[in-house]
Amino acid sequence: MTAAPRNVLLMVADDHGYDLGCAGGAVHTPALDRLAAEGTLFTDAYAAVSSCSSSRATLYTGLYAHTNGMYGLSHDVHNFSLRDDVKTLPWMLKQAGYATAIVGKLHVKPEILLDYDAWLLPEQPGIRDVAAMAHEAGDWIRAQGERPFFLTVGYSDPHRAGDATQFANTRDWPQVPRHRYAPADVRIPSHLPDLPAVREDLAQYCEAVSRLDSGVGLMLAELAAAGHADDTLVIYLSDHGRAFPAAKDNLYRAGIHLPLIVRSPRRNSGNLRCRAMVSWVDIAPTILDWAGVAAPADYRYAPLPGRSLLPILETPNPAGWGRVFATRSFHEINQYYPVRSVRTRRHSYFLNLEPSLTVPVAGDVARSPSWQAILATPGARLGKRTLDAFLHRPAEELYDLAADPDEVVNLAADPAHAGTLDELRAQLAAWRIASHDPWMDGVTDPFGPAH
Amino acid sequence: MTAAPRNVLLMVADDHGYDLGCAGGAVHTPALDRLAAEGTLFTDAYAAVSSCSSSRATLYTGLYAHTNGMYGLSHDVHNFSLRDDVKTLPWMLKQAGYATAIVGKLHVKPEILLDYDAWLLPEQPGIRDVAAMAHEAGDWIRAQGERPFFLTVGYSDPHRAGDATQFANTRDWPQVPRHRYAPADVRIPSHLPDLPAVREDLAQYCEAVSRLDSGVGLMLAELAAAGHADDTLVIYLSDHGRAFPAAKDNLYRAGIHLPLIVRSPRRNSGNLRCRAMVSWVDIAPTILDWAGVAAPADYRYAPLPGRSLLPILETPNPAGWGRVFATRSFHEINQYYPVRSVRTRRHSYFLNLEPSLTVPVAGDVARSPSWQAILATPGARLGKRTLDAFLHRPAEELYDLAADPDEVVNLAADPAHAGTLDELRAQLAAWRIASHDPWMDGVTDPFGPAH
Repeated sequence: MTAAPRNVLLMVADDHGYDLGCAGGAVHTPALDRLAAEGTLFTDAYAAVSSCSSSRATLYTGLYAHTNGMYGLSHDVHNFSLRDDVKTLPWMLKQAGYATAIVGKLHVKPEILLDYDAWLLPEQPGIRDVAAMAHEAGDWIRAQGERPFFLTVGYSDPHRAGDATQFANTRDWPQVPRHRYAPADVRIPSHLPDLPAVREDLAQYCEAVSRLDSGVGLMLAELAAAGHADDTLVIYLSDHGRAFPAAKDNLYRAGIHLPLIVRSPRRNSGNLRCRAMVSWVDIAPTILDWAGVAAPADYRYAPLPGRSLLPILETPNPAGWGRVFATRSFHEINQYYPVRSVRTRRHSYFLNLEPSLTVPVAGDVARSPSWQAILATPGARLGKRTLDAFLHRPAEELYDLAADPDEVVNLAADPAHAGTLDELRAQLAAWRIASHDPWMDGVTDPFGPAH
Repeated sequence: MTAAPRNVLLMVADDHGYDLGCAGGAVHTPALDRLAAEGTLFTDAYAAVSSCSSSRATLYTGLYAHTNGMYGLSHDVHNFSLRDDVKTLPWMLKQAGYATAIVGKLHVKPEILLDYDAWLLPEQPGIRDVAAMAHEAGDWIRAQGERPFFLTVGYSDPHRAGDATQFANTRDWPQVPRHRYAPADVRIPSHLPDLPAVREDLAQYCEAVSRLDSGVGLMLAELAAAGHADDTLVIYLSDHGRAFPAAKDNLYRAGIHLPLIVRSPRRNSGNLRCRAMVSWVDIAPTILDWAGVAAPADYRYAPLPGRSLLPILETPNPAGWGRVFATRSFHEINQYYPVRSVRTRRHSYFLNLEPSLTVPVAGDVARSPSWQAILATPGARLGKRTLDAFLHRPAEELYDLAADPDEVVNLAADPAHAGTLDELRAQLAAWRIASHDPWMDGVTDPFGPAH
């Protein structure tokens, strides 16, 4: 390492949808708004999978979930894990001399492949002490002295908590003002129906988002107090969409369109907006680019599929950033429903590999007041989508996002869109080959010579 | 340890169906026949799952595959692994002071949970040098001196090899006489059609079985030469059925009914037959019983579901051994087809959890000359079963094994068998709860208080 250290602070929220005050959301997020004002808000940033472990594994490896082996959740009976020969971002940075730590939630295994120097305040059920997370992180940063560091902060907010409010809002948390929301005032996202229980549920979710936001503020204050505001690349994002029906664990827009804020000390100006369609596979290359670290030589999975965002931080509409891919295989171990998807500015295309199956609903969403209210309300829809259309999908779905941003009018069988369909099919197929998708029909070894 | 060491030699074949000369099979297996003559042949022994990694994981943990986390294959893209908190047989024996080694094929991960002292001659594609395996094993045994040992020998025979003969019969192997079979002389198992390609394929398989048998003979000679014939519990078995259509990866009889020979130095007489219905979950308890080692205290998965076979080695028809269970979730990662099954002397019952799916065919079986010939032969059946009935199954199957040993006449909808159906349903449901099956409908935590 020469010159100023090129530190990294990666903050990962848990189930935070695209709900930011600075992006027009009806939610109080002053710290995130300020971070966006100091950096770049990506308005079209997408997770590459909509399940916690799979998405974090994508962040940590730069590889799609069907490539890195984390096909579903890692904990308990679900038991998915990274492939043994995958190299992770913290591992690569550590090899390059970085001090590495994670605070809070990891949710990827095996830990040995991440190999953080320290794991501070590992996630505990129901605990949302974002102030303690900031202070532990600050202490750790100060302890590193001049050594460059890579710090990951994994928040548990705004994940559901299984308590009375569903979002750990049953008590006050240290140093965090409570920001409460009236159900009448919440904005209903377009994937949900306007039911009283949904409003109550969203109000609780928003309170958890604001608590998370306070934590981010405390964390950035710690970074500044440690003297590292100006030598640290700060990235804020979420693993996937809100834990509400038709968002979390879905590849529709609400499941993967997420906050992404990048603050580079090298910025010329702040308050930037970037409309590039970027993917969570771009995060590892961005951090490696910032750190000046290359992926290992002779790496089975090289080159990584993503691209560094550093060159486009100040470009509102960069060319060549108009397409993202997404994948789903599992969430819970018994929730098999493989989907592959490509999304452009104009269209989204979904290939449902086992359309005879019923689409599973993530456990916490299934238990949520919102889902229960939807089931109990005859005719209730998920936004514009019928419950039946949500649960039973055809093999292919094609949507025109300009005419139909809610992705409900399936054009896959419409001859007028056959050309678009063919093109997106071809793009998806090429991507599946390039990313060594194990679910390709008739392909036993996706790393074999033919692929 | 006091008194004579209580050593263990566990020999695990790869895809060896119930094909033994001493059991009436048209196959030359003099070493296995001799072992059976010196010990006990179990005529009704069943794997608890019909996929390699899952079945070995069952042997190594004493737990059903849906409990131990090894829901499918471990290697490459499949990437299934044991749950982190599972304790394995080699680990338990090592804790008790045993020297532990494995020769050849493991196919279970993570290795750290098995923690063998040594892994000799790890499996290599196409290599079937059973003499080298015996000699390496013998050297290792001699190097242990008076220390008790647990030696696992994992053969790669008679697995398919992907070469011209499909079974690594393209060359001579050291110290192993080739025993060739004429296609006209092979016996067609009842799950296969009598087609020329099937006969050719079976002839090659039988040659691999005889090579395996020679390896067992060499291994037992090494054991005797090392002076341990009389202080070692010897167990021979296979992971699952032949790599032929409707056997390997199926829970029908041909997929799980397998050779099991146990030779205890304490036997009073040899050449015993035991008709107990025993399961691969009984193997770990048997070895622990022999070694006088208990499963760890405060073990999440205690008590193990199986029972020691030592008390019944000399009992031809022991009471209370009339039922086995089996499970299937995956084989390859993209071959999801969950099945749960219970089998008694009179009936077999299968619960197909996702009957809308097409039953997948294991890659090596799908590429086999037998399967290709079946697909190319209009009207060809898998024994008495139509191809369509094999590939598309109802939610429930019930067979009367006395009237229909080939399990083709489904009685699940027959009112005359409603009582049997109800009883087997209840037994299966109770077993799924007791074994913490993650696939139970509506159960998010199979280890939760309700279960």
